[in-house]
Formats: sequence, structure tokens, C-alpha cells
Amino acid sequence: METFSSKYLETAVQEIGKLPGIGKKTALRLALHIVRHDENYAFSLSEAISNLKRKVCFCTTCHAISDSDVCDICANPLRDFSTICVVETIKDVLVIEATQQFRGVYHVLGGVISPIDGVSPFDLEIQTLVERVERGGVEEIIFALPVTVEGDTTSFYIHKKLQQFSCKISMIARGVAVGNELEYTDELTLARSIRDRVEYKA
Amino acid sequence: METFSSKYLETAVQEIGKLPGIGKKTALRLALHIVRHDENYAFSLSEAISNLKRKVCFCTTCHAISDSDVCDICANPLRDFSTICVVETIKDVLVIEATQQFRGVYHVLGGVISPIDGVSPFDLEIQTLVERVERGGVEEIIFALPVTVEGDTTSFYIHKKLQQFSCKISMIARGVAVGNELEYTDELTLARSIRDRVEYKA
Repeated sequence: METFSSKYLETAVQEIGKLPGIGKKTALRLALHIVRHDENYAFSLSEAISNLKRKVCFCTTCHAISDSDVCDICANPLRDFSTICVVETIKDVLVIEATQQFRGVYHVLGGVISPIDGVSPFDLEIQTLVERVERGGVEEIIFALPVTVEGDTTSFYIHKKLQQFSCKISMIARGVAVGNELEYTDELTLARSIRDRVEYKA
Repeated sequence: METFSSKYLETAVQEIGKLPGIGKKTALRLALHIVRHDENYAFSLSEAISNLKRKVCFCTTCHAISDSDVCDICANPLRDFSTICVVETIKDVLVIEATQQFRGVYHVLGGVISPIDGVSPFDLEIQTLVERVERGGVEEIIFALPVTVEGDTTSFYIHKKLQQFSCKISMIARGVAVGNELEYTDELTLARSIRDRVEYKA
């Protein structure tokens, strides 16, 4: 499908096709949907996208996406500022918030250490985490990083950096997912769930 | 994932999530991609989308998407204006153009007759097609509509409308796809390919 009858359509297909996981055919389908849809939708979508760059900024404390220099979580006096949950991306903040089980604050690294992908500790918000701990008042750091070599490397690196401080360092539990059958759980997860067993509470 | 740290992010996720086939999780992934990507991309994507409504219009002759009142195909003096290929959507124009086998012009109906979906003949560009034929100079109408009850109904309806004119009415061949094994071809297609058999040319 090389010939387009409209260069604006062609440009839109090219731009939409640059999004991750969206090929040229899907891009065309979406572009034609926008053309056919009522006028306001194209403009509200267009504005929402440009606002992502014009208006969205990052919290200077936890580096989560925010509308101002301090995000809603860091600005909330009801949160427990002595507990910092260290996560890879803003998405992780959203899923943890959705559980409504965590009342502490976050620190978004912006990735994990990955020599293969060229991500060094200095590309991540690790130094700013160390500075947060240095300023005092932090009692516990919880690692909620992916269970991969990169995630484990990152936890280990940060752990080394924070050893000099007296705060407790923990990590979220890994184990058999709620609702999953043991039979279909992979061996590594099962082994880990046995090693990290907890006291049974009836 | 109900809590967003930024209302601009939330708006963008809502707007992107309105696109067909894009759920809330994908919308968030795309929005975060745009936030992380360099600034120019968000703006060029945003502009391309709003241009889809501000700049794109429809050809007054064939009703294909165009940048002006007359599309490139209808404005091309090298095309054969005596042959009109009737298609459902602009996408069909693009795929037929990609074959480089058709030198005639098009007529985009904008859909097919479908009582279930509430699409009547008056919602489609059928009257404008009749008017094109009425103006004279049309020797052949080729139906290239989907092989569905709706597509066949639409062909039949237009055929009835055009009977009063002397132009030839044909439809694209249906049969076993090139490269397909007979064994895996459905019975209806195979039956049709036998009925519509053509002279063997060595």
C-alpha cells in the first residue's frame, strides 16, 4: 500500500506507525477511523498528545510523571515518607497504587541497569535516591523491581550504595500467584516461594 | 489502574483508548512512550492527527480521501474515465492501486447496505454514482465489494439502479487465492471458482 490519495493521510499513517506495536496497516486503520469520526475527537486526541510533552513534567522528589514539580503522592501529608518503594517505571507506581496496600512514597528509577541495552547506573535515578536517604527520615527501602537479571543487578547495586545508612532494605515477596495452581507454576518461582515461606496464619 | 499522577496523562490515556482495538493498558503504554520520546515526535504526531480533520477532505467525484476537491486519481488525465471500480472504503482503493493493474477510476460508497447496522442505500454514495453514469461516458462499472450478504445486496441494489443505462456491469473474480492449496480452500470459494472458470491460456 504505497500510494496514498492524501499526503496528510500518509503523514498521519507514518507518525502513528512510529508508536510501539503499531504497524502500517493498524496505523492506516486508526487514521481512517479518526477521519471518519466526528471533528472534536481528532482535536481532543491531538491536544491530549501534545499536552503530554507541553504540560507533563516529572516530580523532582520521586521522578514520577506529574503535572507539577511535586507529584500528588509526594505532596500528600497522609503518606508515610519514611518508607520508599523503588520501582522501574511510572507504570509500576500505578499498579501498586491500584492495590491500595501501600501508604509510603515511591522512587522511580526510570529503568534498570542493563549493560546490553547500554543502561548504566548513571542513566538511572539512583544518585537521587541515595540523596533522599542521606537527607534522613527514611526507615525502609522496598525494592519492587522486575525479577530479571537486570532487576536483581539493580537491587544489588542500590543495596551496596545504601549499606552505609541505617535504613532497612526489603523486597516485595515473590511466589505462586494468587489463584494459580502449583502444577502450572514454573520451578524457579516455586523454589523461591518455598525458600521465602511465611508463618501460616489461620 | 485508576489513580493517575497527572491529569494530562489521564486525558491522553482516555483519548488514545477511544481508538478502535486499543484498550486502556495499550493506551497507557503508548502515552508513556510519547512522554519518554523526544519532544518533536509528540508534536508531529499531534499535528498529523489534527490535520486529518483540518486538511483532509473527500474527492467530490469518487469520494475517496483527498487533499483537495478532486483526488489525484480523478485529476490524472492518463486514467481511463470510462471504467469505474465501485468499492466499499478508501482502503480498497489503496490495495487495488497497489496491484498496479487497474487504470480506471473509482467510486467509494463509504460502506455497504446493512439493515442490521442501520446502513440504508441513502447513507451510501449510490445516488452520486448513478449521477456519474447519467452524465455519460461510462462504459463499464466493476463491483469490487466484499463477498458477504451485505456486499452482494449492495451490488444487486446498484445493478438495479444502473439497468436503465447501457454500461456494462462486471464484478471482480472470486476463486482460489494464488498460492493456496485446493485442499484448504472453503467449499463456497471452490464452487464459485469452478462456476466462474476461465479459458486456459498456456
